[in-house]
Amino acid sequence: MDKPRYKYLDKIDSPADLKKLSIEELYVLCDEIRDMLIKTISKNGGHLSPNLGTVELTVAMHYVYDLPKDSIVWDVGHQSYTHKILTGRRDKMSTIRKKDGLSGFPKRSESKYDAFNVGHSSTSISAAYGISRAKALKGDSSRTIAVIGDGALTGGLAYEGLNNAGRSPKNFTIILNDNKMSISKNVGSMAKYLTQIRIRPGYIKTKKVVEKILLHTPLVGTPIRKLLLHSKSKLRTSVYRNTIFEDLGFVYYGPVDGHDLRKLIHALNASKNVTQGVLIHVITTKGKGYSYAENDPKSYHGVGSFDIDTGEPLSSKKGYSARFGEIMCSLAEKDEKICAITAAMKSGTGLGSFSRKYKERFFDVGIAEGHAVTFAAGMAAQGMIPVFAVYSSFLQRSYDELIHDAAAQKLHIVLGVDRAGIVGEDGETHQGVFDVAMLYPIPCATVYSPCYFDELKADLDRAIYHDDGIAAVRYPRGGEPPRPEGFRPGALFTTYGSGEDAVLITYGRLFAHAAQALSVLKDKGVDITVLKLERIRPIPEEAVETAAAFKRVYFFEEGMEHGGVGESFFMALRDQGFTGSYELTGIKDKFVAQATVEQTLEELGIDCTGMVNKLTWN
Amino acid sequence: MDKPRYKYLDKIDSPADLKKLSIEELYVLCDEIRDMLIKTISKNGGHLSPNLGTVELTVAMHYVYDLPKDSIVWDVGHQSYTHKILTGRRDKMSTIRKKDGLSGFPKRSESKYDAFNVGHSSTSISAAYGISRAKALKGDSSRTIAVIGDGALTGGLAYEGLNNAGRSPKNFTIILNDNKMSISKNVGSMAKYLTQIRIRPGYIKTKKVVEKILLHTPLVGTPIRKLLLHSKSKLRTSVYRNTIFEDLGFVYYGPVDGHDLRKLIHALNASKNVTQGVLIHVITTKGKGYSYAENDPKSYHGVGSFDIDTGEPLSSKKGYSARFGEIMCSLAEKDEKICAITAAMKSGTGLGSFSRKYKERFFDVGIAEGHAVTFAAGMAAQGMIPVFAVYSSFLQRSYDELIHDAAAQKLHIVLGVDRAGIVGEDGETHQGVFDVAMLYPIPCATVYSPCYFDELKADLDRAIYHDDGIAAVRYPRGGEPPRPEGFRPGALFTTYGSGEDAVLITYGRLFAHAAQALSVLKDKGVDITVLKLERIRPIPEEAVETAAAFKRVYFFEEGMEHGGVGESFFMALRDQGFTGSYELTGIKDKFVAQATVEQTLEELGIDCTGMVNKLTWN
Repeated sequence: MDKPRYKYLDKIDSPADLKKLSIEELYVLCDEIRDMLIKTISKNGGHLSPNLGTVELTVAMHYVYDLPKDSIVWDVGHQSYTHKILTGRRDKMSTIRKKDGLSGFPKRSESKYDAFNVGHSSTSISAAYGISRAKALKGDSSRTIAVIGDGALTGGLAYEGLNNAGRSPKNFTIILNDNKMSISKNVGSMAKYLTQIRIRPGYIKTKKVVEKILLHTPLVGTPIRKLLLHSKSKLRTSVYRNTIFEDLGFVYYGPVDGHDLRKLIHALNASKNVTQGVLIHVITTKGKGYSYAENDPKSYHGVGSFDIDTGEPLSSKKGYSARFGEIMCSLAEKDEKICAITAAMKSGTGLGSFSRKYKERFFDVGIAEGHAVTFAAGMAAQGMIPVFAVYSSFLQRSYDELIHDAAAQKLHIVLGVDRAGIVGEDGETHQGVFDVAMLYPIPCATVYSPCYFDELKADLDRAIYHDDGIAAVRYPRGGEPPRPEGFRPGALFTTYGSGEDAVLITYGRLFAHAAQALSVLKDKGVDITVLKLERIRPIPEEAVETAAAFKRVYFFEEGMEHGGVGESFFMALRDQGFTGSYELTGIKDKFVAQATVEQTLEELGIDCTGMVNKLTWN
Repeated sequence: MDKPRYKYLDKIDSPADLKKLSIEELYVLCDEIRDMLIKTISKNGGHLSPNLGTVELTVAMHYVYDLPKDSIVWDVGHQSYTHKILTGRRDKMSTIRKKDGLSGFPKRSESKYDAFNVGHSSTSISAAYGISRAKALKGDSSRTIAVIGDGALTGGLAYEGLNNAGRSPKNFTIILNDNKMSISKNVGSMAKYLTQIRIRPGYIKTKKVVEKILLHTPLVGTPIRKLLLHSKSKLRTSVYRNTIFEDLGFVYYGPVDGHDLRKLIHALNASKNVTQGVLIHVITTKGKGYSYAENDPKSYHGVGSFDIDTGEPLSSKKGYSARFGEIMCSLAEKDEKICAITAAMKSGTGLGSFSRKYKERFFDVGIAEGHAVTFAAGMAAQGMIPVFAVYSSFLQRSYDELIHDAAAQKLHIVLGVDRAGIVGEDGETHQGVFDVAMLYPIPCATVYSPCYFDELKADLDRAIYHDDGIAAVRYPRGGEPPRPEGFRPGALFTTYGSGEDAVLITYGRLFAHAAQALSVLKDKGVDITVLKLERIRPIPEEAVETAAAFKRVYFFEEGMEHGGVGESFFMALRDQGFTGSYELTGIKDKFVAQATVEQTLEELGIDCTGMVNKLTWN
């Protein structure tokens, strides 16, 4: 396919080039950017709907603000593609989300225009406020802007930020990108509240008056402007209701149509004159400009490669999440105590069908993983069986709640830990490589790591009906790996093969690699046994006894070495009087960058090839 | 001292007994409870100010609600002493916070009147909402009440709970115990907002009208009542400003004088008829009824034993927190980039003097540990050097922020981890035993564990000026342990003694026990070397080489074994070809109950005696 040519976009190498265009030209530019976004994401996969929704907003921001002097902190950061295109990275967009290519999220190491790294939700206000206070201490009067979605506003971290930044000095701006969505439809009372203020006419009227004052008062006339603003704000308070944001100390400005460039630029410019922190409420449509995405923004939130004309994904294979959802439905049918909880990830965790069939027992709590766990603990205290389905890397948000609210009082909650292990293209921030080390120190926690769908089912059953306290079942992104001939699952650990030269221990999907390695090694004259752990905490005692009979033990782990299973297994071997050699291969002291899952497993030396290399010791 | 006799209190063995008293008698009862609280806490230590502030509220709640059918979830739980006194635990109050005695916090295992265990802040709304939803699913129409302070409302978890529970069905009540304080004066825009609504006359007027309607409408007349309520609420919205709590879907009720029993009982009764979730705003005075505490509630928030007549503590010794604060001041004097951050623990972390001397560089962000870290990361992105002083067990709230916002982009933030290790009387929820296992898997983190004040200073200097990324210095509650003769600190690790029979490795304050054990063992004919780690992550290579020369290695750790230093040390020894014996003694798979620090170290087998026993292998 020829590289498309764009009349305006092709000339924009930095925000300075954009500032030269007229408003009419900017509109054309937005069309060009949309075209490029759809073409890029249809090939590389990525966050389609969020990026299509923020084209005009991003263009307006670069038109009004002065980057990199001013700093923009994007919340989650999946909506930063237009920002990347406009800040000198246009030609590299074809590499986005690929190994060594552009990140799908802002990265300070990638560009001076990226003020803060991100990937998880609800961090922007806190980070931007930190940046803003540091600038103030340094005497730097440039502006700091946090761009946060209404979905991210359900996260407690965002509120902690609002609470701290409220009544802040000038040069601090929050842009609330309100598209009525998290990944799915946004939930909670804040979402309902935003619906109310979105349609409140009083505000628009007030806004116009304030705008007039702000835009037509020269910067020098500060005392007069302040007086005007003050009396205006008093009037507003008495005649109209305040918004929550004003109650929390921000000047509220909006709602503004987020696809009307003129109004956006007008609003951003006007807000620059306000002498305290401002919150600008912008209404956008997720998926704007691509009909499939606009009609079904949820399905096009984060996508793999797809066909532009039909909107159909180019590959599809039933994954663990879907299977998890099916199992949850069948469990719920038989047991009225089973409840499902998600933190704004209904579709991602495969709970769509559950949410329709068992509406009363389904709880989407918003992007609030900490609350999800404490809420689950409350339910468990009343004898229900809550199952919290959550991505591994987002579970990190509930570390204290797991320890303090569930484990410390031995409340039985079940975790469905999705995207455990390497996730691939989303990179550092989304790798599910900490959950094992995170759960391991928690007293009496039980953790399973199935490799196949039937094991997923068996493990969920164990977690729900045979364990106490926290019981977690962790499973990877994607589909089932190949099952080696003659392998029979069913126990807390299984041996495969019966070679005596060495034992290769692993868990989760790495088992498929290990089984393959066994057969490659056999051809090389090395005869090994594979020991597959299914329950990884506590480690089954017999598994340790089995391993202790070997002279050479190799442990492969798709997670951090520090605090993972491999270290504990070695301690357990010592208790058995083991004196042979022990080698652990997992993730050493580093973050894991973006690449495909296969590329990453290879690079970490934990795929079949890596295993074969380690076990060829001559 | 004779056991005091109380006219009413002595007859109350359960809330049923309380319900028999007249309002006048309840007032006397409150005086008796206050007397008992002051006498108990002056002997055992505990949370004085919070308990004195909630006497009337607790009496009113037990008078109006029907426990244990109804459930009360106390936020933090340090204010639950009156509740304990009134629910059959009066005679055991002298054992509070002692080994095997009553807990200083609610405990489900202690009483059927305790609905949920607690200790950390801001969990009550989430837990109560979980309990309430579970009850609804079971067809149980009893009431669930969360009692939360204005301080706890600065925590994001509370907001996540509010957002999820807003517009909730009936039988769910939040009581906002507003005393204008966290432990120190409450901060942030929510606190300022509460100040506004506390004094708003409009509300009190509305309240009275609503009260009238609610109290004088029989339960049967639901449609009429609904209609009345509806039109009233419409009127209120148009004439008065709504509160944030109404915006978030609660019926707001207040402010109510929290020391006026009649008004309290009236308000609680009235709220029982409301058909949706209610928030009752109660104004209390922390420390009420004990002049020393009322005048200085901060100093009397959590206390050791003290003299009732003078208010003076019975023991005082300069602790690590105070020394930390002094060092911070001297660092800040020389370097304008040094900033200090606390999550509502200014006094507790020793930052009082810093906050006065370096006001511009001091940030109390509220009970918001997650935000504190992300805010610090934002400051670091601008080249400042933020030092976040936080109790070990509260740091658990910022696990994801540490990984995602600081470590993943190699931002240099410094952690002063106070109360690391065993904390004693506060028990399970406050033990600082997870921070090492929590920090260990984080790529490139550096962790120091000094034993003496001069080491604390040296380690802070290293963390600030010689390390990258996250650099933590962890130190225990209390004062300096004795320093053994001839010991010279100063390096990343130190050996003490030169025996060849075994090496005893440890870190932090356990070194003092190890040094003592060395001398006891010498008398027994066992000649050991003590290896004291000061930097515990990464482990200094030379320390491992030193240990590898021994045949017997013993590692003692004041923290969780899983994921701690001991496991990693063993892996490192293996890399050195070590084949000797290795024994790790730390905290096994359990939570650590309340007792004095000394009792706990003994019970865990990690004090001098425990060490001597382990190392006497014949």
